[in-house]
Amino acid sequence: MNIAVVGLGLIGGSFCKALKKNTFHHIMGIDTNREAVSKALECGAIDEEITPGRLGEANLTIICLYPHAIVNFVKEYAQFFKKGSIVIDSCGIKEFVVNECTPVLDEQGVIFVGTHPMAGREFSGFDYSQEDLFKGASFIITPTENTPQIAVDLLQTLAGSVGFGKAVVSTPQKHDEVIAYTSQLAHVVSNAYVKSPVMLNYDGFSAGSFQDLTRVAKLNEYMWSELFMCNKTALLNEINCILEHITEYRDAIVNNDTEKLTEILRDGRVLKEKSIEIYNK
Amino acid sequence: MNIAVVGLGLIGGSFCKALKKNTFHHIMGIDTNREAVSKALECGAIDEEITPGRLGEANLTIICLYPHAIVNFVKEYAQFFKKGSIVIDSCGIKEFVVNECTPVLDEQGVIFVGTHPMAGREFSGFDYSQEDLFKGASFIITPTENTPQIAVDLLQTLAGSVGFGKAVVSTPQKHDEVIAYTSQLAHVVSNAYVKSPVMLNYDGFSAGSFQDLTRVAKLNEYMWSELFMCNKTALLNEINCILEHITEYRDAIVNNDTEKLTEILRDGRVLKEKSIEIYNK
Repeated sequence: MNIAVVGLGLIGGSFCKALKKNTFHHIMGIDTNREAVSKALECGAIDEEITPGRLGEANLTIICLYPHAIVNFVKEYAQFFKKGSIVIDSCGIKEFVVNECTPVLDEQGVIFVGTHPMAGREFSGFDYSQEDLFKGASFIITPTENTPQIAVDLLQTLAGSVGFGKAVVSTPQKHDEVIAYTSQLAHVVSNAYVKSPVMLNYDGFSAGSFQDLTRVAKLNEYMWSELFMCNKTALLNEINCILEHITEYRDAIVNNDTEKLTEILRDGRVLKEKSIEIYNK
Repeated sequence: MNIAVVGLGLIGGSFCKALKKNTFHHIMGIDTNREAVSKALECGAIDEEITPGRLGEANLTIICLYPHAIVNFVKEYAQFFKKGSIVIDSCGIKEFVVNECTPVLDEQGVIFVGTHPMAGREFSGFDYSQEDLFKGASFIITPTENTPQIAVDLLQTLAGSVGFGKAVVSTPQKHDEVIAYTSQLAHVVSNAYVKSPVMLNYDGFSAGSFQDLTRVAKLNEYMWSELFMCNKTALLNEINCILEHITEYRDAIVNNDTEKLTEILRDGRVLKEKSIEIYNK
């Protein structure tokens, strides 16, 4: 089939490369960045460049832009998509995008499905895209009650063929709640962690734990601030939750309450062990 | 020379194995745990078991116990150590241990030096000890102004021969301040991170960032609560610092201040990049 990929950055570029490597679909690229398009054509990541006017030729369109840009693109070109075709996005929040795009495309007889390939790198742009970026990762699909099952089936199948380790079906709401915890909070905490006065003065004292905690501090501030703002409620719940818990340790230390401190450390250790047991990793 | 190792747990056991593998020193073990002693003898990690009464035969004693147990051991057996010999410890905080042990041993003509092998595992006990546990790690040495240089030289040399990547000389105070940040805070934050209601309900949504942030949540609560309590001031400074910064992100989100949010995320990203530049890793 014909697959249009809109946005040839890290994720879009990786989709193109993974699709070309693992499937025999025809890949059509769209990007306002001339350099990305040239490189994608040159290395064979896309078969051709198209303008939005030719979106009607695509059976599937994968939009790899930031949340607001996805919504703007869909609204601007709604009438160009092929009737009965599927349009998916790949950004890190789902409720906002699904709520905005679904009715607009539904009116045109086009099926919008929010999806989230849970993969990334600390670099952006086509140059860093990889044909195996999705290898073993989760592909989250967030249909609504009106999404035809066949669209979900197609996306699951496609996810498997480009290397994802599993396809998880969820709701946009559940996705955003969980992602606020497993991904967004991690970026907030890691980015806050590096702000100690000791940060540029720890030479020789670097521990594995420190490297773990600060790895994702190196983030794209434009993308993440937009993702955070699109998921305010869930993220604020998580931020408040960790602030409350960190404060508990602080209070136990201030009060010289070793027993309490040991107890709350044990609670955390047990929870981590339980999660390892449940998820077996 | 004769080296006594007191406490044959993860760190003590690893010291014995690394010393036996890489040097021709005679290793004498002390532990109240009979099983650990048997296993250490059996696998050749120690040449013999000794009682504290024979500490006078050791040119170097490495005490691998928790902070208060180190101090108690030193006070109880002070008169048994060999005059002119060196006694070091290996726990994760230095000012408390150095302040308590130095005068007691000084009176006996014995040189106490606080040291900290920056290595560990998420498991405890001799069974998990490894001859290459220290490979590439930092060995922190915290002499006071009265420590003879030759003792520091000996310890640096020994650190190199058992596989440490570098030996860093610091003061007990500086050590504790930096370690509060690079290690202790990481354990507090990671242990707090797992306490979200979402923790046991994230299947399929696990991200690399989440795994990083929660790895060290699986900690030994007895050891860490003792380490935290022995380093109250420095750790509380760090906890308050990260609480303040996480609150900044929260407030920017609550106030819909995307510009501010982007700015503080950028600050963190730039700091992380600077640290990568400085430390070249």
